[in-house]
Amino acid sequence: MGRPTVLLLLLTFLTPGAAIRVPPAMKALSSLRWSTSFTSRGTVAKKYSINYIEQKVNHFGFDADETFKQRYLIADEYWKKNGGSILFYTGNEGDITWFCNNTGFMWDVAAQLKAMLVFAEHRYYGESLPFGNKSFTDSRHLDFLTSEQALADFAVLIKHLKKTIPGAKNQPVIAIGGSYGGMLAAWFRMKYPHIVVGALAASAPIWHFGNLVPCGVFMEIVTKDFKRSGPNCSETIRNSWDAINRFARTGAGLRWLSKSLGLCTALTNTQDVQNLKAWISETWINLAMVDYPYESDFLQPLPAWPIKVVCQYLKNPSVSDAQLLQNIFQALNVYYNYSGQANCLNISETTTSSLGTQGWSYQACTEMVMPFCTNGIDDMFEPHSWNLREFSEDCFKQWGVRPRPAWIITMYGGKNISSHTNIIFSNGELDPWSGGGVTKDITDTLVAITIPEGAHHLDLRARNAFDPTTVLLARSLEVRHMKQWIRDFYANQRKKH
Amino acid sequence: MGRPTVLLLLLTFLTPGAAIRVPPAMKALSSLRWSTSFTSRGTVAKKYSINYIEQKVNHFGFDADETFKQRYLIADEYWKKNGGSILFYTGNEGDITWFCNNTGFMWDVAAQLKAMLVFAEHRYYGESLPFGNKSFTDSRHLDFLTSEQALADFAVLIKHLKKTIPGAKNQPVIAIGGSYGGMLAAWFRMKYPHIVVGALAASAPIWHFGNLVPCGVFMEIVTKDFKRSGPNCSETIRNSWDAINRFARTGAGLRWLSKSLGLCTALTNTQDVQNLKAWISETWINLAMVDYPYESDFLQPLPAWPIKVVCQYLKNPSVSDAQLLQNIFQALNVYYNYSGQANCLNISETTTSSLGTQGWSYQACTEMVMPFCTNGIDDMFEPHSWNLREFSEDCFKQWGVRPRPAWIITMYGGKNISSHTNIIFSNGELDPWSGGGVTKDITDTLVAITIPEGAHHLDLRARNAFDPTTVLLARSLEVRHMKQWIRDFYANQRKKH
Repeated sequence: MGRPTVLLLLLTFLTPGAAIRVPPAMKALSSLRWSTSFTSRGTVAKKYSINYIEQKVNHFGFDADETFKQRYLIADEYWKKNGGSILFYTGNEGDITWFCNNTGFMWDVAAQLKAMLVFAEHRYYGESLPFGNKSFTDSRHLDFLTSEQALADFAVLIKHLKKTIPGAKNQPVIAIGGSYGGMLAAWFRMKYPHIVVGALAASAPIWHFGNLVPCGVFMEIVTKDFKRSGPNCSETIRNSWDAINRFARTGAGLRWLSKSLGLCTALTNTQDVQNLKAWISETWINLAMVDYPYESDFLQPLPAWPIKVVCQYLKNPSVSDAQLLQNIFQALNVYYNYSGQANCLNISETTTSSLGTQGWSYQACTEMVMPFCTNGIDDMFEPHSWNLREFSEDCFKQWGVRPRPAWIITMYGGKNISSHTNIIFSNGELDPWSGGGVTKDITDTLVAITIPEGAHHLDLRARNAFDPTTVLLARSLEVRHMKQWIRDFYANQRKKH
Repeated sequence: MGRPTVLLLLLTFLTPGAAIRVPPAMKALSSLRWSTSFTSRGTVAKKYSINYIEQKVNHFGFDADETFKQRYLIADEYWKKNGGSILFYTGNEGDITWFCNNTGFMWDVAAQLKAMLVFAEHRYYGESLPFGNKSFTDSRHLDFLTSEQALADFAVLIKHLKKTIPGAKNQPVIAIGGSYGGMLAAWFRMKYPHIVVGALAASAPIWHFGNLVPCGVFMEIVTKDFKRSGPNCSETIRNSWDAINRFARTGAGLRWLSKSLGLCTALTNTQDVQNLKAWISETWINLAMVDYPYESDFLQPLPAWPIKVVCQYLKNPSVSDAQLLQNIFQALNVYYNYSGQANCLNISETTTSSLGTQGWSYQACTEMVMPFCTNGIDDMFEPHSWNLREFSEDCFKQWGVRPRPAWIITMYGGKNISSHTNIIFSNGELDPWSGGGVTKDITDTLVAITIPEGAHHLDLRARNAFDPTTVLLARSLEVRHMKQWIRDFYANQRKKH
């Protein structure tokens, strides 16, 4: 695709003058992609067909009439034409086969809902590139990467499926998604209620925009996760930044840091140190999102409850700077070297795959403007305020576009969504994204399900022997709602005839 | 604007090979604009302020960041900051000052609803031209003329008003519109229920798309209007086409036709004759839309119940061709020469103003694809089938774009809209557009109001001493619903605090 795969990090790192000029927002969300793409150990390969549909590049204009091939996957092993349903995964920022293989919940409930599973790839991700390898070349080619276009793709695809698959026409469709895909699922039900009877929006931070929630909430939850996972854990991390800063004052200190943290590339200047701290911050964020109760494969394999493991190394905030940073190194190794195979740590990467990074960076610079901030008091990070103006400048440099931070709220309603129906908002309380999510019932049919022991959309993952009771309960509630929507659909249909 | 103002007619007329290759759809809708723009006699000039807001030319893409000035009018004479409301006219295909001056209903109810009146101009009409005098030059400049962009303009405008007008923030907004503006009002509530608490969609043919209603329904209602307005009236018109065709066979016949019908320009060939018949058809259509119970100013002044007056000349379908056509001439004169000042009839025009013709022609060629047809049996017109392929070719020649006939249904739900709330669909039974409208309640809060003696959105017109009881009843029902929405809004607001 002609650009480095670690673009988001580079965007952060190459911006001079502040440790996190483009605040954790983008990095956090860039990671978010990966958390969804987990392959939990022991996952069996899924059986699905790979399909393509011709979609208009621009649903909202008629000058350009080009089309592109959107990829979607279908699994119909458990589908029943009689009384069945269609579970439609609203693909988010990544390769759809990853989501398909890692949204075990849909596979687990397919039989009881007699459901066809459809996984629709989001435009500009995976193989669904509107302009092939030119899709990311400039803002002109990127102009059709918006949530509205993605939802329109989904709507057109479902109409196509109902038209072409015998037996699908008179079946209810339920939208399911996690993270950004969860936002899409919720928004899809809001904007196209004639197409989906309901939506399961898992870990969907639909309120992480504008001033709807405090900009510090995300990092506060990250901090809480560390605080609860071991005594003095968050304090130790909070103290680490100054320890790094003190070492970074001298050349000898930089050399010591590079060696003691086992970095692949030695630190040589202030900017490198900012990059180091951003990379460490992102590591803690990633851990908070994937703090799952069982071993799982992320970038490298992770242990069960990985933050607890990390915190075993971070019990003492009051040791010497050198000792404290050596402990931090041990902790980082849980994330980057659980398998013991890494020779050094590469601070230009927190994830290994190249999927979707560019697309999400662009989306974060246009519609998906999520304010993030830290104050170092309620959270364990160095203080950084949210600066829209600087963010906008960075976006303009990077993509030639400027964010419109108010737009998503104008479009999708912000907190004023009570006139909609049939949306489940599920959130794990460990998940930093829950801070921007809907965690209280809005109406009888806009319901919130919270999972105290849940990290980022744990409920969408395949069932596991180590699942806490609360996620089992959440899933069973979700299924109960979905069954109700399906019953209502068929009841209405009978009424009509 | 560089193109002839009678473009729609030219588009029809210049297409060879069929009398109505681009069927009455477009002409009918082009006329529809005018019917809304009526100035009934005795209308007092309205007091309003003229305002402008900077709008993004493209709400759905970030590459081009241009803005344009959208015009809107505000009348706040009766507005109360305490317990008041905002009635928001969703501007349709024309100059907003016309709609403002001719939607008397809003002015009549302002006091009892303590309402601020806002009239928002639709982009690409009136003064709200995204690219000034270049707005219609090509499909690239026209690319932002869609209903979705117009609704986004409305949403942004309302958020702006609530932010900038002290006292407006916590007030309920109700969308009101007629005809295409009625469709916009309904769609606005469907897509932005967080911005408007309800919508009054008057004479909004939201189902005149795809196969949702039979393509012949419009012309059947036109025919019924003539049938009920005088004995043998529709039969006489039905017989007139063959009479014209028989005269048109010879040069002498063409000369006779030109003279007897008082045409400004003599007919010389077959195409001229097709144009003549299309022009006469359009005249009957226009009359059906504006068959109001009192004198009104249209293009020229019209008498009360104009079709009844017309039908006085059309009582005898079995006279000689010459006599029959002389009677048709008399009938046409009711429409074109009620004031007695026309020296000849100009078949290239059925309306005198130039407002919005280009814009609507483009919209009809892209999103607003309304199938129309006649069979000469259930209606009084020559048979013409709906031919999408030819229509598409004509559009491509005219605008360089092709229609997407399924899109509006995918976007706005077609007949599957029962999950929405708080929309009143009002229709006059005399109005040919009622055939594509919602004329039966869908749910408790998606209600239909029909007005047996009503033509095109009679209910939106100013009250008049000659208003039939049924329109008074309709208006009072409409007000009752609106008051309920306002009460619900304030009750919900109190609950929150």
